[in-house]
Amino acid sequence: MLDIAIIGSGPAGLSAAINGVIRNKSVKVFGNDPTTSYIYKAEKVDNYLGMVGVSGAEMMNQFITHAKEIGVEFHSGKVIEIFPMDGSYTLNVENTFIEAKTIILANGITKDKVLPGENEFLGRGVSYCATCDGPLYRGKTAAIVGDSEMAEEEVNYLAEVCDKVYYVPLYKNLEHIDPKVQIVMDKPVSIGGDEIVNELRLKDGNLNVDGVFIIKESIPTTQLLKGIELDDKAIKVNQFMETNLPGVYAAGDCTGRPFQVAKAVGQGTTAALQAVSYLHKLG
Amino acid sequence: MLDIAIIGSGPAGLSAAINGVIRNKSVKVFGNDPTTSYIYKAEKVDNYLGMVGVSGAEMMNQFITHAKEIGVEFHSGKVIEIFPMDGSYTLNVENTFIEAKTIILANGITKDKVLPGENEFLGRGVSYCATCDGPLYRGKTAAIVGDSEMAEEEVNYLAEVCDKVYYVPLYKNLEHIDPKVQIVMDKPVSIGGDEIVNELRLKDGNLNVDGVFIIKESIPTTQLLKGIELDDKAIKVNQFMETNLPGVYAAGDCTGRPFQVAKAVGQGTTAALQAVSYLHKLG
Repeated sequence: MLDIAIIGSGPAGLSAAINGVIRNKSVKVFGNDPTTSYIYKAEKVDNYLGMVGVSGAEMMNQFITHAKEIGVEFHSGKVIEIFPMDGSYTLNVENTFIEAKTIILANGITKDKVLPGENEFLGRGVSYCATCDGPLYRGKTAAIVGDSEMAEEEVNYLAEVCDKVYYVPLYKNLEHIDPKVQIVMDKPVSIGGDEIVNELRLKDGNLNVDGVFIIKESIPTTQLLKGIELDDKAIKVNQFMETNLPGVYAAGDCTGRPFQVAKAVGQGTTAALQAVSYLHKLG
Repeated sequence: MLDIAIIGSGPAGLSAAINGVIRNKSVKVFGNDPTTSYIYKAEKVDNYLGMVGVSGAEMMNQFITHAKEIGVEFHSGKVIEIFPMDGSYTLNVENTFIEAKTIILANGITKDKVLPGENEFLGRGVSYCATCDGPLYRGKTAAIVGDSEMAEEEVNYLAEVCDKVYYVPLYKNLEHIDPKVQIVMDKPVSIGGDEIVNELRLKDGNLNVDGVFIIKESIPTTQLLKGIELDDKAIKVNQFMETNLPGVYAAGDCTGRPFQVAKAVGQGTTAALQAVSYLHKLG
């Protein structure tokens, strides 16, 4: 079992990770490639003390180098959900299950807007993970809503499994979509059904489907870890980065403004040290 | 009038300063030479993301270089007290008075322990500043309690002004004390007097004096800025580093644990951005 599972590989997650490792805890960072962090695209970052006139890419590369030198381990794959167990947590990482004593949420700004019907039908036709739930739709019809080209691999996987696949992209430049997929340039409005999903309603028409996959870069925090308390859209934390759930901490943009590298790094450090102190109390 | 006066030149103060300057505010950092920050003496700092395997001195030098490149201005001299004015604050910097619209307290860990009688007689025989109040004791007898060799310059100045000077050092290796000064190796217990101070009571005897100077590296925050709210010994702040006083922010070790560079830098950034937003509201 991991001591600390860190969700997110931006500045907050990496800062938490180096501090956990330095304190001799078993730590893993779950998240997209750190180079996908939005800071990576920043032309110039001048306000992180000690690094003057660096580009976002240079800064993130220096952060990643630091983490690797300290011995931080990365686990690729998206964390779909975190379940509280008795005194620990289990992560569903695209259907691989990993246990951890503590969790540090550093998952950045997540768009928590959900479609009408999305929460209602979650697990009954709505899914956030094609790799996990795709096999349930073998020979059936599925629609996928994706917010970036990172969704396309899952779309193409579903094209292999399902009888019919609709793809509703929420972005413009599609990269590589299997020709069997029917692309629908429209705006999702709601998800409908009775006991289980039977349609995805769009602005200009409805799709009759057995399942709707919503593949976003980030999963809404309240879906990721049920029961986590928010304050407006941010995860509610105290000065020690403790959330309302025992052993769960948050750091960085997911805790709200200001959206700054220095604040993320500082909160990551605080969250990790607080997790370490919690682990010591667990004994 | 300054937009932002920053009290303290450690990582929190420098981080606040670069952010204030980048946002085009007039900023000054008040404090000891940044090389006196305790982090400067650290053999190795491994947990500030982006700088691996640096010494405390290397890190602080890189911080100072960054601040100077950005154009941060430093003002030497100790801030003795901060007075609230109508919508702004006035700093007494060893009897030079400087106005600022906002204050960022980044004064580190201050030893807020005061002697019995210290608060009671403050301004009536007790002083924190020889440069300020020395002339009032011309031809009189004064005792000085000093917690580091940084007090010695003030001791020697009082030796020129006063008729008789006792020095009670709270440290071992005295560097340079005027031979006219009588050094008393004893432990201060309390300050006594009627209307005004008349004695400094020590563990092994009392000194009859007209004034007691208490010269510490840092002035207790509650003396520095009256009315500031503490939480235990730390300055009470919310997530935006706002204190209970309008236009006053705090960052770094003075806000409590963890005492970490990353946390100080992050809070410094947050405090500065919040001050900037307050200044914009002032118009």
